[in-house]
Amino acid sequence: MPKMNAFYAQSGGVTAVINASAAGVIETARKHKNRIANVYAGRNGIIGALTEDMIDTNKESAATIAALMHTPGGAFGSARYKLKGIEENRREYERLIEVFRAHNIGYFFYNGGNDSMDTAHKVSLISKKLGYPVTALGVPKTVDNDLPVTDNCPGFGSVAKYVAVSTKEAALDVLSMAKTSTKVFVLEVMGRHAGWIAAAGGLAGRKSADAPHIILFPEVPFNKKAFLARVKECVERYEYCVIVVSEGARYENGKFLAEAGTRDAFGHAQLGGVAPVVANMVREKLGYKYHYAVADYLQRSARHIASATDVKQAYAVGQAAVKMALAGETSVMPVIKRVSDSPYRWKIEKAPLSRIANKEKMLPPRYISSDGFGITEAARRYLQPLIHGEDYPPFIKGLPKYVELKAVAVKRKLNTEFVV
Amino acid sequence: MPKMNAFYAQSGGVTAVINASAAGVIETARKHKNRIANVYAGRNGIIGALTEDMIDTNKESAATIAALMHTPGGAFGSARYKLKGIEENRREYERLIEVFRAHNIGYFFYNGGNDSMDTAHKVSLISKKLGYPVTALGVPKTVDNDLPVTDNCPGFGSVAKYVAVSTKEAALDVLSMAKTSTKVFVLEVMGRHAGWIAAAGGLAGRKSADAPHIILFPEVPFNKKAFLARVKECVERYEYCVIVVSEGARYENGKFLAEAGTRDAFGHAQLGGVAPVVANMVREKLGYKYHYAVADYLQRSARHIASATDVKQAYAVGQAAVKMALAGETSVMPVIKRVSDSPYRWKIEKAPLSRIANKEKMLPPRYISSDGFGITEAARRYLQPLIHGEDYPPFIKGLPKYVELKAVAVKRKLNTEFVV
Repeated sequence: MPKMNAFYAQSGGVTAVINASAAGVIETARKHKNRIANVYAGRNGIIGALTEDMIDTNKESAATIAALMHTPGGAFGSARYKLKGIEENRREYERLIEVFRAHNIGYFFYNGGNDSMDTAHKVSLISKKLGYPVTALGVPKTVDNDLPVTDNCPGFGSVAKYVAVSTKEAALDVLSMAKTSTKVFVLEVMGRHAGWIAAAGGLAGRKSADAPHIILFPEVPFNKKAFLARVKECVERYEYCVIVVSEGARYENGKFLAEAGTRDAFGHAQLGGVAPVVANMVREKLGYKYHYAVADYLQRSARHIASATDVKQAYAVGQAAVKMALAGETSVMPVIKRVSDSPYRWKIEKAPLSRIANKEKMLPPRYISSDGFGITEAARRYLQPLIHGEDYPPFIKGLPKYVELKAVAVKRKLNTEFVV
Repeated sequence: MPKMNAFYAQSGGVTAVINASAAGVIETARKHKNRIANVYAGRNGIIGALTEDMIDTNKESAATIAALMHTPGGAFGSARYKLKGIEENRREYERLIEVFRAHNIGYFFYNGGNDSMDTAHKVSLISKKLGYPVTALGVPKTVDNDLPVTDNCPGFGSVAKYVAVSTKEAALDVLSMAKTSTKVFVLEVMGRHAGWIAAAGGLAGRKSADAPHIILFPEVPFNKKAFLARVKECVERYEYCVIVVSEGARYENGKFLAEAGTRDAFGHAQLGGVAPVVANMVREKLGYKYHYAVADYLQRSARHIASATDVKQAYAVGQAAVKMALAGETSVMPVIKRVSDSPYRWKIEKAPLSRIANKEKMLPPRYISSDGFGITEAARRYLQPLIHGEDYPPFIKGLPKYVELKAVAVKRKLNTEFVV
C-alpha cells in the first residue's frame, strides 16, 4: 500500500479529553510511519482543510504529543462548522478533496459528535465519486454523551465527574449554612437536549436526604407546581434543597425554561441560563434564600478533575481509529462496548458512521426515577464507572502545566483561496 | 490551672479549608487533656452556644478529626449571625456566658471573619465584667482575604487556586473555539467588596495575549466605555477575550453592576450576578457571541483543588489559637506573617482582636495594573505562593471521600430555652 498522509480535525464543542484522542491518533500513526507519513491537523478544525491551513504534527515532539493527554481544550482549534448536504454544498466537499489530493492525504480522522460523523460519512462517499477515495473515520467526542451505538462518549466521563464532585462539594457548603443563610442552591449544567450530564449530578448523593434533591432533565417535562412542592418538602425535611438543572430543561410544550419569556427593562430576552429562572421561581413562590451557579465552560474544560476512565477511553478511540483505517476500514467509528458494570470492563468495537450520524441518544426512562426528579440504580450502575479514577495533570507553581503547540503550518500547495 | 472545656464555632460563609482549622483546634486541644477536657463545637456556629446545642467532639474518632483536613463546608454547621453591640444586646452575651458557665467552658475559639473577631473580642470583655472570664481567641477564615494584619486568610488560597485553574482551563476552551463560536467569556467570582479573588484569576496568564484579558475589580470604578473598547481590542488582536469579574464590581457612584437597574417583565430586579450584566453589555454594543459562568459556591467548596499552602495554614491557625490560649493569651488572633516571597516562608504571630474586628483590607493600588484591568508583578509575588501545592482528598468510586460527623449532642444542663 502506498504511503500517505492523514488529516485530523477537532469539531464542535471541545472537552477536557479531546486532546487525548488527538494523542491517540498521532502516536498510533507515528508507529506506522511506513503507512502514514505525517498527520496534518486542521487549524480550527475542518476550516483548516478548506482554507489549506494545516498544522504539521511531525514538528511537535513526542513529549508535546504525550502532554496532549492532560491538556484540555482543542489544541489545534475546533470549529462549529457543519458541511451541508452534498447537493447543496458540493463546492466544499470538492475543495476538501482538492486539498487532500494536493497533500497526498488518504486518511481523514474527524473527532466530533453527530454532525461530524455525518460529514465524515459524506466525505467518504464523495471522495470515491471524485476518483480520490479517502479513508474516513470518526473519532467520537461529546460531553453531551448523546451519540448512539457507543455505550458512552469520550468527554462525558470527565464532565460527569466534575458535576458530581461539584454538586457534592457545594452541597456540603449549603448544608452547613442552611440554618441562617441559603436554603436552595441551583447548579446549571450542560447537555443540550439530553439529560446525561444532569444525571451525573445524581451521583453526588445516595440517600433521599442527600443532595442533589432534585434533578431537572430535558427528558422530563417541567411541572412548576410539582417542582415547587418538592423544593418546599426538601427544605422542610432536610433544611436545604440542592437542584441540578439541565440547560435543556423544558416545559410540556417544548419551550425551554431558559426561554421563559422574561425580559429586562429594555425589552431584551432575559440573559443567561436556566438556573436564574429556576431560582427566581423558588424566590417568588417560596421566598427561600437561594444561590445559583452556572458551570458553563468550567465543566467541560476541567481537566484537573478529569475521569481517568474517560482519559483512557479518549485515547483508545483515537488509537483504534488509526488501527481500523490501517486495517482497511472506512466510514466507521470506534465505539465503546461495555462488557460489564462491576468490575467495569469495556472494549472497542466499530460501528458504521451511517448508524451514528445525526442521531441523538436521550437518557432512557429506566434511568429516571418514577417521580422524574432523580436517577435510578440502573443509572448509577451505568454512570459510576465513567467517573472512576483520577488523572491529575502535572502542576507547576500551583497551576496545571498544559502544553502549547508550536503549531507550524504545513506549506501550502494550492494557489487558490477558499472563503468559508 | 483548673481543667476546663473549650467551645469552638464556625462563623459566616464556609470555605474549603475551615474544617482544617477545626482539626487544628481539636487535635491540639486533645494533646493538652490536662488543661482542656473537651472541645464542644457549636451546632450551626454561635447559635449552638446560645441554644445550648453543642456537639461533643470527644465522641469523634481521631480518624474523623483527621479527615476534617480534607473535607469542605462547615462540618459543625456555620451561621450568619452577628451578635450586636453589648448595650443593644446584652441578653445574648449574658446567655453565652450562662451556657459557658454551665458547661465549664473557659476557652472560646471563634473561626470566622471580621464580624466574628468583633464578637470574640466582646465576649472576652463582657465575660470579665460578668465575673466569669473566658479566654476568647479568633481563628481567621474568609475566602475574601479581607482581614487586616494577617498577610492572608485561610480559605483564600484555595478559592484563588480554583479561580486561577478554572480561568486557565476555560480560556483554553474558548480560544480553541473562537474562530467560529464564542469570542467572549465572562467568569464571575466572589470577594464581596475586595478584589482579591478576582486578582487571583490573573495568575492564569502571564503575557498580554494570555487570558484573562480583563479583570474587573471592586476597587476600580467600572468605566463601560473603556471596558468595551478593551474587549473589542482583545477580540481583534487575540480572537477572544476572557473577563474575570468580581461580584462587587461597581460604578464610580458606588452602585454595583449587578444592581444595574435592569428588571424582568414582572418588574423584579434582575436576578443573578454581574456576569450576565457584563455579558449583556458586550452583546449589545459589540455583538460578539459570549458565554458566562457563575462559579458561586463551587469556588469556595472546591476542596478537590485546594491549595496545599492554604490547608497547612488553616490547620496552623487553629493549632496556634489553642497554644496561645494555653499560654494565657486572650482577645488575640493568630495571623500569618510572610517572611519571604520566594522561597515562600511564613510564620504565625498574634494580633489583638481589636485590630482585626470590623475592618476590611482591600486590594492595594500597587497590585492593580495602571489600566485598571489586570494585576502587577507585585500582586503575582503576593498571590502565587498562596495557591502553591495540591492536596487532593482521598477518592472512592470516583468521588471525594468526605467525612461525616456523628455529631453527638452534649447533654444540656440548663432548663431554659433561648430563642435566637
